Amino acid sequence: MTPAAHARRLDAADPLADRRDHFVLPNDTIYLDGNSLGPLTHAAQAAVADTVAEEWGRGLIGSWNDAGWVTLPGRVGAAIAPLIGAAPDDVVCCDSTSVNLYKVLAVALSIREGRGRLVAERDNFPTDLYIAEQAAARAPGACRVAWLTPDESIADTLDEDVAVVLLTHIDYRTGEMHDMADITAAAHAVGAVVVWDLAHSAGAVPLALRDAEVDFAVGCGYKYLNGGPGAPAFIYAHPRHRHQIAQPLAGWFGHAEPFAFEPAFRPRADIAAFLTGTPPIIAMRALEAALGLWQGIDMQQLREKSIALCHLFIETVEANTDDEALTLASPRDAAHRGSQVSFRHPEAYAVMQALIDAGVIGDMRAPDIMRFGFAPLYTRYTDVVAAAERLVSILARRTYDDPRYRAQAAVT
Amino acid sequence: MTPAAHARRLDAADPLADRRDHFVLPNDTIYLDGNSLGPLTHAAQAAVADTVAEEWGRGLIGSWNDAGWVTLPGRVGAAIAPLIGAAPDDVVCCDSTSVNLYKVLAVALSIREGRGRLVAERDNFPTDLYIAEQAAARAPGACRVAWLTPDESIADTLDEDVAVVLLTHIDYRTGEMHDMADITAAAHAVGAVVVWDLAHSAGAVPLALRDAEVDFAVGCGYKYLNGGPGAPAFIYAHPRHRHQIAQPLAGWFGHAEPFAFEPAFRPRADIAAFLTGTPPIIAMRALEAALGLWQGIDMQQLREKSIALCHLFIETVEANTDDEALTLASPRDAAHRGSQVSFRHPEAYAVMQALIDAGVIGDMRAPDIMRFGFAPLYTRYTDVVAAAERLVSILARRTYDDPRYRAQAAVT
Repeated sequence: MTPAAHARRLDAADPLADRRDHFVLPNDTIYLDGNSLGPLTHAAQAAVADTVAEEWGRGLIGSWNDAGWVTLPGRVGAAIAPLIGAAPDDVVCCDSTSVNLYKVLAVALSIREGRGRLVAERDNFPTDLYIAEQAAARAPGACRVAWLTPDESIADTLDEDVAVVLLTHIDYRTGEMHDMADITAAAHAVGAVVVWDLAHSAGAVPLALRDAEVDFAVGCGYKYLNGGPGAPAFIYAHPRHRHQIAQPLAGWFGHAEPFAFEPAFRPRADIAAFLTGTPPIIAMRALEAALGLWQGIDMQQLREKSIALCHLFIETVEANTDDEALTLASPRDAAHRGSQVSFRHPEAYAVMQALIDAGVIGDMRAPDIMRFGFAPLYTRYTDVVAAAERLVSILARRTYDDPRYRAQAAVT
Repeated sequence: MTPAAHARRLDAADPLADRRDHFVLPNDTIYLDGNSLGPLTHAAQAAVADTVAEEWGRGLIGSWNDAGWVTLPGRVGAAIAPLIGAAPDDVVCCDSTSVNLYKVLAVALSIREGRGRLVAERDNFPTDLYIAEQAAARAPGACRVAWLTPDESIADTLDEDVAVVLLTHIDYRTGEMHDMADITAAAHAVGAVVVWDLAHSAGAVPLALRDAEVDFAVGCGYKYLNGGPGAPAFIYAHPRHRHQIAQPLAGWFGHAEPFAFEPAFRPRADIAAFLTGTPPIIAMRALEAALGLWQGIDMQQLREKSIALCHLFIETVEANTDDEALTLASPRDAAHRGSQVSFRHPEAYAVMQALIDAGVIGDMRAPDIMRFGFAPLYTRYTDVVAAAERLVSILARRTYDDPRYRAQAAVT
């Protein structure tokens, strides 16, 4: 049986196969970049059109009540909750991941005021690094960020001077996944507060924030949750911290009675104390609609398909290429890998450009990583095999060795 | 001539009359709440549909470059600039007004580190109060907010201990307007940095931020700019401060090279250093499209119409009512008033409910203010007369004295 025929059998037996019809995907494209920007769904498209025409256009200001705009951040948070192993009132949707991380770190640092270190990984996504520096610099007391290099163990750095541990659960370059429960428990053992960035986790792998007793988390709406470009992000807080959300971006939507217009701030007693300004309604409606696709999804089944897709890609590429410059950058063991596969290649930029030209969209992270995201809701096994075969062919024929694939865009 | 006939003549002679066709307004409604949420435009509706279907749906991740998403915050800022008397590169579009105010106040306070007071008005819109408290509490050095009561003069409070003066240009309750140039000059005379909140000013009145040498400003995208519910807001900074934008929400989009993924933050050298996370593309496209309606608008002509609309409303109401409980809350002198008219009435809530039921949408601010916004791009003189006559009738017949108009909504 050819790899393609094998893939067709797997697609035919895929219990998640019907989800793909809910997505608007170009016919001529294999889209493996949902870890960067999830694709459009028919539901999001319809929701946006309706929100604009009916709620904004006809309902006007009345839609704050009549269309439930006022409570939308909480309702979208509640829709995200089951995907991350949280209770509905643990989560609220708002702002960007960066803004939310600043809020959460400020609260986490104030809870452990007096301790001297915020532990974080130097290899984390840059916005987390920048925001961590700012939050630590502006925290009460003198707290500095202690940066871990990839060689250093998180466990070894933990002691009772650590105020906060900030980690991204799944690495954006390699897809390497931390053990959330173990690290959270170890941090709690020294009294540290744990903040997880779920940017590459929510909708990609099963999560159990409540079971792991995670303190705080932030996550992204536009990757595996398919909320649209720049979709609002989310914040999770464990109920034990709910009474102490004294966050710096204390805007009117986080007030106990925003429409009482009181001069003194009284935070809401729930997770919505993390809200700041007026919520971005149209964008939030797109995310809400896209979240509807997760109704009835068994996250373990999703994980099984994710592992199978990633495995099939690695296997098909490695079995068919003889380009020794290509090396797997992701963990080979699925237990330590999210829903993406990354390969290193010295010509990563040009190879990815050639691949995009051949209809397979992944992306590239300097200097040498090609990333491929496998979103189980819409990626087929046949897509995986076709993508792998095109990659193998580009490497074998050195198709990438063409000036038009080497010219770096001004902005990537 | 009846008031309605007079209004029809004014509409026929209105040089801005053609703008109204660009708006999607329900036929059965007179909308006087554009100071809270501007209405939908055909341009925004089309832009959102196209952004969703083509840029997100077909273009997918490639649209960051191909559709210019990366540079959208600066381009929308440049489109706002002429409406506020700024240069195109003085303005950037991002986040909410509340989040932006936090960023700007942090920068302003750091510029005058060592001074002890942030002067602000206790009657300001609450989110500004809450954010000012947070920004002052987290500023380097010991700076506190000195709250002015409505009786206190800004000029009298200014001395060389004042780090920052934060003012909202047009009061959200009464529409009272500060003299931006005078106050800015007085604050500069003692070395204070001035931050203006333009929430009720941008698109409502002509502004001259550069001429007035204003240091920083923030403003709202969803009121007179018609960007849609929760539209992204904007930040203005004078070029003399451009080199010192060390803002707390230093996210990856404010980095000099966001896609270089550098571990150390290097702020952009331009106004976009105020960016934080991934921009909300769909919402920003809606605002961008709505801003297109301002092409060719003479802001002085807009102001003349705004004054005439407000004057006609006050005159028609006052000439025809004998309800002595109704009093003008806005300044009678147009020179001190924005583009809204507020009346006080002890039954303000019920009167406004009855008015909304009669097809005239304004809003109410506790305890006793009815607000009416007059947006010159789509409000007709005939609308003004009809609205005034319905208000007069409701007061005369005590239509508001009905239980269904007195039941307060859980959320207003």
